[in-house]
Order: sequence, then C-alpha cells, then structure tokens
Amino acid sequence: MRGTYEALCEHGYTELTAQDIADRTDKSKSLLFYHYDSKEDLLADFLEFLFERFDERVAETRDLPPVERLAVFVDWFLYGPGENDRQSFHVAMLELRTQAPYNEEFREKLRKSDDQLREVLEEILRDGLEAGEFREHDPEETAALLIAAFDGARIRQLTIGRDEYLEQVRTATATWVFDDLLAEGASFPADRDPSTLPEADQQHRLAADLRAENGTVDRDDDTNGTDVDDSGAARDEPVERDRE
Amino acid sequence: MRGTYEALCEHGYTELTAQDIADRTDKSKSLLFYHYDSKEDLLADFLEFLFERFDERVAETRDLPPVERLAVFVDWFLYGPGENDRQSFHVAMLELRTQAPYNEEFREKLRKSDDQLREVLEEILRDGLEAGEFREHDPEETAALLIAAFDGARIRQLTIGRDEYLEQVRTATATWVFDDLLAEGASFPADRDPSTLPEADQQHRLAADLRAENGTVDRDDDTNGTDVDDSGAARDEPVERDRE
Repeated sequence: MRGTYEALCEHGYTELTAQDIADRTDKSKSLLFYHYDSKEDLLADFLEFLFERFDERVAETRDLPPVERLAVFVDWFLYGPGENDRQSFHVAMLELRTQAPYNEEFREKLRKSDDQLREVLEEILRDGLEAGEFREHDPEETAALLIAAFDGARIRQLTIGRDEYLEQVRTATATWVFDDLLAEGASFPADRDPSTLPEADQQHRLAADLRAENGTVDRDDDTNGTDVDDSGAARDEPVERDRE
Repeated sequence: MRGTYEALCEHGYTELTAQDIADRTDKSKSLLFYHYDSKEDLLADFLEFLFERFDERVAETRDLPPVERLAVFVDWFLYGPGENDRQSFHVAMLELRTQAPYNEEFREKLRKSDDQLREVLEEILRDGLEAGEFREHDPEETAALLIAAFDGARIRQLTIGRDEYLEQVRTATATWVFDDLLAEGASFPADRDPSTLPEADQQHRLAADLRAENGTVDRDDDTNGTDVDDSGAARDEPVERDRE
C-alpha cells in the first residue's frame, strides 16, 4: 500500500506501471502480481485501504458536537493547496476516478466511498438538527451540495492550479450555507470556523500514516521528484513526473 | 473537429489514438498529423474550438435579463444524465482534464475556459445586482461556489453514475443560494426556475452542432458503440468502449 501510494505520487495513475509499484516494495513484479491479476486489481485494493483509513478518521470524530464535526469535515476537503505529496497523490486519484466508467471494480469501490462520505455528512447534519444546533433543512440535499462544491473546488485546484477556488468556496459555503444553517445561539468554535483556513497539521495525515507504517521514510522527506511547493510554482507547473 | 468529437465519444481520451481520429476523417493519419505535432496538439485545438462555441452561446444570451441568464447558465451545467453522446463525451473531457497537470497546453486552454466561465457568471451576478434583481452578495465567491458545485455534481454523475447529484445539487442550490439571492419582488420565470429540470432540447446542442457541420450524420444516429441510455443502464455501466 505504501509502495502504491508512493508510485502514484511519482507517476500519476495513467502512466503508472506494475513495475513502478514493484520498484517500491521488496518484492519482484512477478511475486507482487502473483497476488493481483492486474494493476487495476491492486489499485482497487488500495481504494479499499483508503476507505478503511477514512472510516478510522470518522470514528475519531464521533464524540465531537455536530458543529465541530462539520468543521473537521470541511477541513478534510478544503485543506491547503501547497502540500507536495497530497497534490500529486490527489491528481493521481482524480485520474483513477475518470477511469471508473470503464472499470467496474473502481466504480464499485468509488460508489462505496461516495456512500460512506454522504452517510457521515448526513449523520452530522441530522445530529445537529436533533441537538437544535442546526435549523430545519434537508440533510440529503445539503450533503450533496457540500460534497459537490468541495469536490469541484478541489478538482479545479488540482487540474489547473486554481488555488483560489479552495478559499472562495470555503468562504461562499460559510456565507450561503453555514451562516444560515446555524440555529440562533449556535456557533462554530473560533478555531474551527469553516470560513478560516485549516491548520497545517491536518494536511500530512495520509502521507504520515503511510510512512509511519514502514518507519523508514522520514515524514518531511521528498525525494520522489514531485516538486510542487507553497511558493506559487504549483500555479504554473502543478505536478511534475517522469513521463519516460 | 467532428472526427475528434466522435472519436472521443467512442474511445474516451486515455486510450484515444491518432489513428482513431484519422479514421473519422477523409484524411490519412500522416496527412492529419502533418498539421499537428501530436494527439495532444490536436486536442488542444479542439479545446479552443469548444471555447469559441461557448462564446457564441454566451453571446446569444446577452439580451436576457440577469435572472433568466442565470437560469440558462444552470441548465448548461445540470442538463439531464441520459444523453448518450454527452455522457461519453464528457467522460472523455474529464479524462483530458486530469492530464492538465502534466500538459502545459491543456492547462493553458482549460484556464482560459475557467476564466471565460467565471467572467460570464460574475457578469450575470453583477448585472443582477445593478438591476436590483439580486441582493447584495460577493459575485466572485458566489460564482466560484456555483461552478464548483455544478462541476462536482457532474463529475460524480459521470464517473460513478450517481445521477441523483444533478437534481439534489440543483434543488440545494435553489434553496441555499438562489432563493436568498433574489431581491424582494424578483423571481425566476416559471419555465426557467433553476429548481426544475431542464428541457430536453438543451441537451443535444454540441452534438447537433457538430453533426450539422458535416451534414451526413443523423442527429439521432448512434452507431458508435457507446451504449448509455435513459433506462438506468447508465447507473451500472456508465460508458462502454472498445478497450481492444
């Protein structure tokens, strides 16, 4: 899983080969693909791994009040644009997503992920309604709008480097949705207001998790040739990878 | 351009070859690629062609009042899910978009498209403010939210066949944004209310345009092997194409 993650960060999905993944493990390509029928088959397993991670992260938030959980949820999506690994990794995941129409296994896994995401967000919204923290609204529709808006903002940031979408959608969601959603007297905790930018320590989570599993790669190491930084370079050259 | 459009509908973008495009013209591959350096180069030209089309469509709406223009804009994005050509064509365009981080020409064209889209929407919102049809708001942020939400809904519909996003985001946008946006006394024309589904005749526009140019392909013809219909098949098998 760690090898797959690193190979996706370096090569993207479209041009990823089975060899690229094998190169990042201590196994030969033939041994690795003794377990998997194809690159796609391995990637489907990787998607499953990501969903389990997401489930764990969701579980960690269960005891928070609905407004705080909602703010955490916003941060998961609208994290900052300047993170090397996440940038190239999420571009790769986006490439993979566009192959779902042609690949039943991907489609099935990504639907499961969509269900999972919607269920969490709808649960948060319903809990907030019950607790009297949110005004009357339709949690299903609101969840669909938030997921679509965050996904759309992220996609424009990743594909064409339009970082401004992240902040503008964050602010616009706060103005049009969250401000109206809060019942009188309810408010977002000051350090978790979804109209403010997320903390940096949220951003390295998956990369850090994956590296901790192996224990040999330093968290701040960046030797994989992806070269996108905070300085604005991302705007002109969002992701670099070896094409050959 | 018509050959490129048809080849994209049939093969998607990732597996599209120069030969696939040449097969749909009366030119040989070598003659066609006398004009273009690569498949990517031709596709960049195709993107330019699409933007010009979009400009023409925008120009046609300039005389409408802002509320009506806004409703037309919503329909351009949240058209119905069951259109054969559009479904497979837009999946192909999504594949292409995910290659923008690796392709400077694509990135440049897609940024131009993003600028164009935002300018139109911000113009509509500003005109509405000036005309007193819309309440005070920030047109830039609102435009970013609407574009992101519509894009995100479309992407989930196209990649995993979750058609419900289109209608839910339409309704949620009407509830959270449009209902608040309208100044007292202003309303959407009944047949253009963005919370209702768009008319079918909006949906075939590009396909019809491209076919009319050549004049030899019937508008309802569907011989290209894409097999997604209104019956719900799209949900289980969004797009089929020949992989070999």
